[in-house]
Amino acid sequence: MDPKLGRMTLKEWVAIESDSVQPVPRFRQELFRMMAVAADTLQRLGARVTSVDMGSQQLPDGQSLPIPPVILAELGNDPTKGTVCFYGHLDVQPADQGDGWLTDPYVLTEVDGKLYGRGATDNKGPVLAWINAVSAFRALEQDLPVNIKFIIEGMEEAGSVALEELVEKEKNRFFSGVDYIVISDNLWISQRKPAITYGTRGNSYFTVEVKCRDQDFHSGTFGGILHEPMADLVALLGSLVDSSGHILVPGIYDEVAPLTEEEINTYKAIHLDLEEYRNSSRVEKFLFDTKEEILMHLWRYPSLSIHGIEGAFDEPGAKTVIPGQVIGKFSIRLVPHMNVSVVEKQVTRHLEDVFSKRNSSNKMVVSMTLGLHPWIANVNDTQYLAAKRAIRTVFGTEPDMIRDGSTIPIAKMFQEIVHKSVVLIPLGAVDDGEHSQNEKINRWNYIEGTKLFAAFFLEMAQLH
Amino acid sequence: MDPKLGRMTLKEWVAIESDSVQPVPRFRQELFRMMAVAADTLQRLGARVTSVDMGSQQLPDGQSLPIPPVILAELGNDPTKGTVCFYGHLDVQPADQGDGWLTDPYVLTEVDGKLYGRGATDNKGPVLAWINAVSAFRALEQDLPVNIKFIIEGMEEAGSVALEELVEKEKNRFFSGVDYIVISDNLWISQRKPAITYGTRGNSYFTVEVKCRDQDFHSGTFGGILHEPMADLVALLGSLVDSSGHILVPGIYDEVAPLTEEEINTYKAIHLDLEEYRNSSRVEKFLFDTKEEILMHLWRYPSLSIHGIEGAFDEPGAKTVIPGQVIGKFSIRLVPHMNVSVVEKQVTRHLEDVFSKRNSSNKMVVSMTLGLHPWIANVNDTQYLAAKRAIRTVFGTEPDMIRDGSTIPIAKMFQEIVHKSVVLIPLGAVDDGEHSQNEKINRWNYIEGTKLFAAFFLEMAQLH
Repeated sequence: MDPKLGRMTLKEWVAIESDSVQPVPRFRQELFRMMAVAADTLQRLGARVTSVDMGSQQLPDGQSLPIPPVILAELGNDPTKGTVCFYGHLDVQPADQGDGWLTDPYVLTEVDGKLYGRGATDNKGPVLAWINAVSAFRALEQDLPVNIKFIIEGMEEAGSVALEELVEKEKNRFFSGVDYIVISDNLWISQRKPAITYGTRGNSYFTVEVKCRDQDFHSGTFGGILHEPMADLVALLGSLVDSSGHILVPGIYDEVAPLTEEEINTYKAIHLDLEEYRNSSRVEKFLFDTKEEILMHLWRYPSLSIHGIEGAFDEPGAKTVIPGQVIGKFSIRLVPHMNVSVVEKQVTRHLEDVFSKRNSSNKMVVSMTLGLHPWIANVNDTQYLAAKRAIRTVFGTEPDMIRDGSTIPIAKMFQEIVHKSVVLIPLGAVDDGEHSQNEKINRWNYIEGTKLFAAFFLEMAQLH
Repeated sequence: MDPKLGRMTLKEWVAIESDSVQPVPRFRQELFRMMAVAADTLQRLGARVTSVDMGSQQLPDGQSLPIPPVILAELGNDPTKGTVCFYGHLDVQPADQGDGWLTDPYVLTEVDGKLYGRGATDNKGPVLAWINAVSAFRALEQDLPVNIKFIIEGMEEAGSVALEELVEKEKNRFFSGVDYIVISDNLWISQRKPAITYGTRGNSYFTVEVKCRDQDFHSGTFGGILHEPMADLVALLGSLVDSSGHILVPGIYDEVAPLTEEEINTYKAIHLDLEEYRNSSRVEKFLFDTKEEILMHLWRYPSLSIHGIEGAFDEPGAKTVIPGQVIGKFSIRLVPHMNVSVVEKQVTRHLEDVFSKRNSSNKMVVSMTLGLHPWIANVNDTQYLAAKRAIRTVFGTEPDMIRDGSTIPIAKMFQEIVHKSVVLIPLGAVDDGEHSQNEKINRWNYIEGTKLFAAFFLEMAQLH
């Protein structure tokens, strides 16, 4: 085993700018480098590694970009043992120091026990914790209690492009011996108490483009006689959600699972210090005042967020421009039993309705650019019991049984294609700031998380 | 006289990236270089040139940036002649080839008789046409028919920072002998028929900032429980103007001058081929169908344009972010007799009203970052008559007597401080695309414009 493993590797991995969201060649090269480095790490651990060529993707603007390979790796092949497959991703969200990062996002920097860097918690840190756990058994020259497989991708933040086809193709090959699937791509709900996750929301991402012409106008020369695209777009975006967070698209709540008394009780059992949560989030006031309402609106009700506008004036200063063509972006987090294609139709019809009432001469185009299903699991499956026992061993406490408001489409996909039980075992604390500026993972979480995974292997061996 | 003058100079001037809108040191250096080059050109023409140090400006973010000097220049001092002062500016709007420019915006490129480049028509071309007219008299070794003064600045696109103080200070010095003031910083209303401009709209530029925290959120982790700043901002911006272009701020139309029958007749007299105007603008349909309505809504009614949003996701791709802090930008073009400070109060009160009804826990801050008065002149002043005669001589036609929907605050300022008559004699065609991508001036307009200014000098000498 490489003695550097686990000590310096997170720093090296964070240093690779593996941004899959911005579709430019430079970042794609970084993604390929990231996957090669990870494949090399796994090989040095003794794994049989395959890097699967994923071809390329066609972007809406006609550009073609190569997709980074997916790593399939195997360690151990003992038929008397259970086989646990770990899924992780090594691509990251965009990060630019000018946006408010206090340190270089691509230089892992420790401050007060916190390791700051893009991808530190989402998802490079947890992937390495799993690798570290495996290498601990290697270092102690102990047999692995379970057979381990890895599937590691580089396009998660861009919607796991082409991954589903691969899983479908490998269903009876790579996945044939897999008994359980573990993902560690979300966060605890507290700063110190571990959690197990049994459900995630889905996501449907929309663009709405309004075009007058492909050139901007001077607001003095044309202001007053145009159907201005920004006025149309602002009205369209303003029709989506009210000030209480209620989505205004007709029919959108029709398929949301009805709330039972039993379900409410599961929220009551969860420890959530609202004051601490509010403080660590640095939010003055949430839309709701009770723990139960907050959990339900993060987990079991849909939400709509407006992300921004492409094509308008977005820089400092005072430009007197009428943008000629603008693209609004928003997404709806989906919950059981909402259906992606029904939501697509409802949103499109709603926006067409609002737009037609404006009698604008501009052209509007609505597209759903991502559609990801929600996921929910059975909390009595073997690996849920094993994870609970491992958490008791390492942390001395019961875990919070939680869902995640974010989308981890791979969970739903594994459940539907591979037909094996999926569990999410997060390692990061609630304030890790995944996707935002100053993302971090705590040193403590990174180390205890490694122990948790090692204990989980032992418990799985017992329960299988 | 420098033989290159007028032939290569426009290309050289356009090559200087004198962007005053983006407050960054690099562009400020270019502005200083631009002013130095222009001062040198005027000196070689024989003018007495002063470059006035304008100090520096404090930006909202605390940064301090130097203001480029203002050029004051004089040619001729014959007390028996009239003195005409020409105002122009050599700063430009931002230009980035990636935004849809077909040629490098800072390389003057001739295609089919059109000279493309940022600043070609706004305002470097017209400034050079005036200089060329003067140098024509020099080249022919003829005396100038009038005394000429120049005031040339480099901050017009940023609101003519500190210029008013300078004009006030020079009122009884540089401006003491000035009889007439000429500006050529707008466009004709047609492609071929010249115009004289006797009024411009003002402008009040607003920012409205909505802040939850100074860091973005993940839309999965926080979507559903936040007062999202973008939802607030979209509602605020959506409350400003309806789909017919009517401004919804209470009281905003109260001070707009009442419309008289006589005024309507002036619009009827103007030649405007709506079909050609629509085609050259590449707009499928305007808000209004008649010539009179269109002219009135560009000239004598206020308009509101939403320019964009700073701080939200503005790039290609699908980022699942809830922006933590966003700044909306919009401006209102003002007409006689609207008052800048009244408008500031009305807009602020309206936005505070809309925001308070949302019960949002975010913080909102409204600022008016620019406030520029509208201007209107007496069309029977001497120089209006001289300009009409010069146009008949050079173009063989009567000019359109027009107003401009854009803001040329300096016109109003000269009228109020120097108390001399101001005229706007535009040279550029209606489709020049000032402030937008692919700005150009026609070679024909540039050359005939130079002749027009020379003829104007002769007519002024006769009428004075």
